[in-house]
Amino acid sequence: MGSGSMGSLFGGFLAESEVDVTLIDRKPIVDAIKRYGLQITGISGDHHIRVKTTHKPSEVGVVDLVLIIVKAYDTEQAVIDADPLIGKNTWVMFLQNGLGNEEIAARIIGKERVIRGVTTNGAILEKPGKIIHTGAGETIIGRCYEVNTPEVDNIARMFSESGLPTSVTENISGVVWGKALVNAGINPLGALTGLKNGELLEIPEIVVSMKELVLEGMKVAEKLGINLLFDPVEKTFEVARETAQNKNSMLQDIERGKRTEIDFINGAISRYGKKHSVPTPMNELITALVKGLEKRMTKNS
Amino acid sequence: MGSGSMGSLFGGFLAESEVDVTLIDRKPIVDAIKRYGLQITGISGDHHIRVKTTHKPSEVGVVDLVLIIVKAYDTEQAVIDADPLIGKNTWVMFLQNGLGNEEIAARIIGKERVIRGVTTNGAILEKPGKIIHTGAGETIIGRCYEVNTPEVDNIARMFSESGLPTSVTENISGVVWGKALVNAGINPLGALTGLKNGELLEIPEIVVSMKELVLEGMKVAEKLGINLLFDPVEKTFEVARETAQNKNSMLQDIERGKRTEIDFINGAISRYGKKHSVPTPMNELITALVKGLEKRMTKNS
Repeated sequence: MGSGSMGSLFGGFLAESEVDVTLIDRKPIVDAIKRYGLQITGISGDHHIRVKTTHKPSEVGVVDLVLIIVKAYDTEQAVIDADPLIGKNTWVMFLQNGLGNEEIAARIIGKERVIRGVTTNGAILEKPGKIIHTGAGETIIGRCYEVNTPEVDNIARMFSESGLPTSVTENISGVVWGKALVNAGINPLGALTGLKNGELLEIPEIVVSMKELVLEGMKVAEKLGINLLFDPVEKTFEVARETAQNKNSMLQDIERGKRTEIDFINGAISRYGKKHSVPTPMNELITALVKGLEKRMTKNS
Repeated sequence: MGSGSMGSLFGGFLAESEVDVTLIDRKPIVDAIKRYGLQITGISGDHHIRVKTTHKPSEVGVVDLVLIIVKAYDTEQAVIDADPLIGKNTWVMFLQNGLGNEEIAARIIGKERVIRGVTTNGAILEKPGKIIHTGAGETIIGRCYEVNTPEVDNIARMFSESGLPTSVTENISGVVWGKALVNAGINPLGALTGLKNGELLEIPEIVVSMKELVLEGMKVAEKLGINLLFDPVEKTFEVARETAQNKNSMLQDIERGKRTEIDFINGAISRYGKKHSVPTPMNELITALVKGLEKRMTKNS
């Protein structure tokens, strides 16, 4: 479900490796993919892939695996729409950024079938069905609420065999939080100032803020018992340096007049902080500012 | 010193009431005023005023009162430039926004001669020498470091008689901090989101942030022993409501690619907070963000 850049990349590669895949998205998008197929170019060569598509999940019926790759703010609707796909033995995997997607899912479909995933692959959607695979990355998956079963290993193997190297972890929360904390330290600062990741590092006051935003989030993660796999402050600076020329995804969203995932990054840190009595004034403020910016962008568009 | 909107308003009205005034500013600006005189229109009627001008303070010699009305970040340079104007009995008044102007001044010229002032008059500079008086306000003045003398009353009377109602207070710090706290709660939020003051109030998360920014500043003011004259949180919401249609001055600066006074508003709150061990994470973050935005604006212009 979801045929943006990452949904098309995973759906396309799985279909090409002869997994029975149906891409599900809104009608105008699936119509375009129906007409021209999926074209994937970039670091993994040129691919032209025929794949089944539909905008009606009920036409597909019950499946083995529902892979949800939508923006975090669309998770709830996607899980509701996925209802006809989900049978007694269906896994539902959330390959998304942000915090709390699995909780939204678990409220609707229960905890047992939920698998969470995070990927560092890079891809750009040129238009529906046309994707550039810009960065080779790894994908890590795991169940959030129970230990993994051999079936989860099988899913990882299937992904890997399709060309997208994937491993299984018993600490998916640590992986998800690690990535979210890095995003919390970079994304809203870029979105609010319009600066590229490397330019942010040139302003001493911004460097301090970057660190403080991540530290607040770290304290919330600690309180929740999350076992982080690296020092997120160090990692944030490392990522900003390595992607110095990039405008981060939240800044790109703002420039395109699109809604951001702020509610699932800094906003989520602030919500969890409130719930567990960890003060997060900076994450709260920056969430408010990005919401203000979204409002302005909506007015202008 | 300084012939922006407020400097021209005060200088013009004083000159018109036959006070011996010289406007001091950079050469291109004083040349324009020399050529066409000062034109003041708006709520106080139409005025066309001839006034002496120069870009060389040494040509003026020692005066009774130096009135410094420049952006806060130019205060230090203005005080240095004012040296030839200052004799044994010269008063130096700072009619500016922001916190800490008088400390910068006192380091250079001592504490005895410093008078601080705040005005709620509104004026727009159309071009050098052409000013619209948009809002009738009051001006409050007072010495920062000592009790006021009859001479300070005389200055207030002189201002009032020129058409700019002015009173004297023994608590000028309370007045200056009160105004700065309101600015701290509104200005950077508008600058970063691009929203008008009234639009800020439409976003619940922004309303919370507004309050929290002011509360942090209040705690710093308390620690410094400042006696505030009103509840600054209430006042901030009141001002935002009353100026709902306005883009605040910091947003205007950003839109014109100009440097803002952030270092003397939220930045000052954060500096005083650090010095006196009062945590100000939100004011620190928002200062960093506005500095990032200034950097981007400079790049674009």
